[in-house]
Amino acid sequence: MRRPVITLLTDFGLSGPYVAAMKGVILGINPQALIIDITHQVRPQAIEEGAFLLSTVVPFFPRRSIHLAVVDPAVGTERVALALQTHEALFVGPDNGLLSAALPDAARPVGLPAAQQAGGTADPIAVPLPAGVRAVRLTNRRYFRQEVSRTFHGRDIFAPVAAHLSRGVPLEELGEPAQEVLTFPAWRALPDSSGCITGRVISIDNFGNLITNIRGTDLPSSEVWVAIGGQRFEGLQQTFQEGPDFVVYIGSSGYLEVAQRNGDAAAALSVGLGQRLTVWPRS
Amino acid sequence: MRRPVITLLTDFGLSGPYVAAMKGVILGINPQALIIDITHQVRPQAIEEGAFLLSTVVPFFPRRSIHLAVVDPAVGTERVALALQTHEALFVGPDNGLLSAALPDAARPVGLPAAQQAGGTADPIAVPLPAGVRAVRLTNRRYFRQEVSRTFHGRDIFAPVAAHLSRGVPLEELGEPAQEVLTFPAWRALPDSSGCITGRVISIDNFGNLITNIRGTDLPSSEVWVAIGGQRFEGLQQTFQEGPDFVVYIGSSGYLEVAQRNGDAAAALSVGLGQRLTVWPRS
Amino acid sequence: MRRPVITLLTDFGLSGPYVAAMKGVILGINPQALIIDITHQVRPQAIEEGAFLLSTVVPFFPRRSIHLAVVDPAVGTERVALALQTHEALFVGPDNGLLSAALPDAARPVGLPAAQQAGGTADPIAVPLPAGVRAVRLTNRRYFRQEVSRTFHGRDIFAPVAAHLSRGVPLEELGEPAQEVLTFPAWRALPDSSGCITGRVISIDNFGNLITNIRGTDLPSSEVWVAIGGQRFEGLQQTFQEGPDFVVYIGSSGYLEVAQRNGDAAAALSVGLGQRLTVWPRS
Repeated sequence: MRRPVITLLTDFGLSGPYVAAMKGVILGINPQALIIDITHQVRPQAIEEGAFLLSTVVPFFPRRSIHLAVVDPAVGTERVALALQTHEALFVGPDNGLLSAALPDAARPVGLPAAQQAGGTADPIAVPLPAGVRAVRLTNRRYFRQEVSRTFHGRDIFAPVAAHLSRGVPLEELGEPAQEVLTFPAWRALPDSSGCITGRVISIDNFGNLITNIRGTDLPSSEVWVAIGGQRFEGLQQTFQEGPDFVVYIGSSGYLEVAQRNGDAAAALSVGLGQRLTVWPRS
Repeated sequence: MRRPVITLLTDFGLSGPYVAAMKGVILGINPQALIIDITHQVRPQAIEEGAFLLSTVVPFFPRRSIHLAVVDPAVGTERVALALQTHEALFVGPDNGLLSAALPDAARPVGLPAAQQAGGTADPIAVPLPAGVRAVRLTNRRYFRQEVSRTFHGRDIFAPVAAHLSRGVPLEELGEPAQEVLTFPAWRALPDSSGCITGRVISIDNFGNLITNIRGTDLPSSEVWVAIGGQRFEGLQQTFQEGPDFVVYIGSSGYLEVAQRNGDAAAALSVGLGQRLTVWPRS
Repeated sequence: MRRPVITLLTDFGLSGPYVAAMKGVILGINPQALIIDITHQVRPQAIEEGAFLLSTVVPFFPRRSIHLAVVDPAVGTERVALALQTHEALFVGPDNGLLSAALPDAARPVGLPAAQQAGGTADPIAVPLPAGVRAVRLTNRRYFRQEVSRTFHGRDIFAPVAAHLSRGVPLEELGEPAQEVLTFPAWRALPDSSGCITGRVISIDNFGNLITNIRGTDLPSSEVWVAIGGQRFEGLQQTFQEGPDFVVYIGSSGYLEVAQRNGDAAAALSVGLGQRLTVWPRS
């Protein structure tokens, strides 16, 4: 029998006991669960980056994997806790945009509201559940730990719920049907009539590479200029070994990225999450 | 059959090969072992913080899990190596206070000796084994790796011993009975006659939240003042979203904690491990 | 049945989604694989340090473990991708020196070429495959993911190949036989006629301990002087508790190491990877 996969994504870091407590709870309920860490180093409270990272790995996991995600600054308040089921996978976590990866692009708004464009950071928006996605609000305390703390629903609600799902408890057992879910805008910046695209930095990886919300498939041409952090670069390159210093390329998740050869682009350009960038056709 | 769980807690960090070497040794002896990392980022040589972190996760793991802990600055000296068995779990590691989590509160001293109060850091104290806890000194080389290095008992003694325990080797096979064990004082600061409690910071997590040795159940009231790092805060809050800037609350392990909303309390207050704090009733 | 072990070593860090994507791909092909992280914190593009770290853990893993290593700054260029099989284990990764651990010492050059001695960093050298080692160039796209990105062969080539190996696909199925492999010089600095050894720092661990390429078994005596970073220390000590401040000892992998008691030797001595050191007999 195939062991059920439960992935974990949090902003808990690895120096504390929080992740291990969640794993202990899961194994106490389902010793057959195969627990895989996605990352626990989402920047504290960076919900959108967490959602984006989750979206980039979901396609590579076996079908029916359970993705348990906790970036949850509003834990203990009235924010809703959710479980979602799609044709591909299950998702468990707070309803704050973190579970955007469960929704197809078409169900998500495109572009930032005008008021948020300057800052480059998005607020999540409530959308109706699209066809093929079921969701419940986690209200059935039978699937929680007996005592629920105010500050650690990862251990007391989300971990036990994911473990019960992995044992075959049906989604509908976990609570009342939800009609909508909070989502961030689709990570997709579209060209204007002149072929120019204004996007933003959605994630920064361990190498300092800048991952943007501009998709390779939306570029007007493979010959583009990119302006970011007061500098202008020529793209696209195919590998990290090309280009004089900075390298512009389509990364392994399909998004336009900016790297520094053998360096840290985020540091070199003084760029952080949400930083805007512009791409336009050369010639 | 349930796969036996072996947890690992060390100060080895994740950049070196040490943790992996221990895992390789364990799997060579028991390929069925389910190895779970608690953390490998205990501050180097911070034995008491390691012991505290272990104590906060043990209750969440399945019964009879084996907890293998190595924060061991005196490796290679005459310090004793131990395995302990309680009704709940098994513990393997150096006898330097790190295995305090195996002992019930009643078996541990309360409060710091006077000489250690100013510094806020405790030395471990030898106590007799309480009823229900068995212990052996690891002296039976048959359960070690064949060659034992002077500086890496985690790989050469503790990992193979834990792996053999997970295969059902009885505790008593591993060496001679031990009569006492080194322990840190119970993490419990008690109120004086006026209801005032003087405690200390026992751990600092990834968010910079300060975890103290003051238990929620020992507080005189849920309306308290907290003085730490030259500042005074009002408690208790129920969630991270309440309070103006700093938040005082009972954390998910039952201890009083101090956090900064969307910030790092340890940095903002210039507070480190061992820092003392005082709590007293409002009104 | 014994579950096949696949180890992972990369410079991807733990904050991004890259490691998890590789694990998802592996589990999709072989849900029985037991995946163990060696480290993902090899310094970015530090191929030789990655190769050295791998070499120190291979002996502790069960026979026929599959070691998947990716430190791959030239991904997407013409660099070759390899799988190697020895009597002990299998190795998968780029042919850039990272797989040096698959080769016995005798098959590797000794000492740095003169031109590289000042810098202390080695370039890999092509050597013929020694007896007992088989290798293939990964050219059979049947064992890749269907779409292969230009920048993430870890996910698209190396992970699926390792997973197929773990299911019993024979090495020769994966591509064409390779006749040679790139390797770093053996990590072994030999004494000159006066018993003096000039070595270099090969790795720096989480504690700041300096690991060198000088083997304990090559030392002229256990009473030596060590000069590094403009200072001179007396060796050898047996444990971290001996010695006034800095401690010189033979580490758990058999190499001479320099540590600072309760401190960080790399920081205290301002020493980085490649730093040269000299050892000579006392008296």
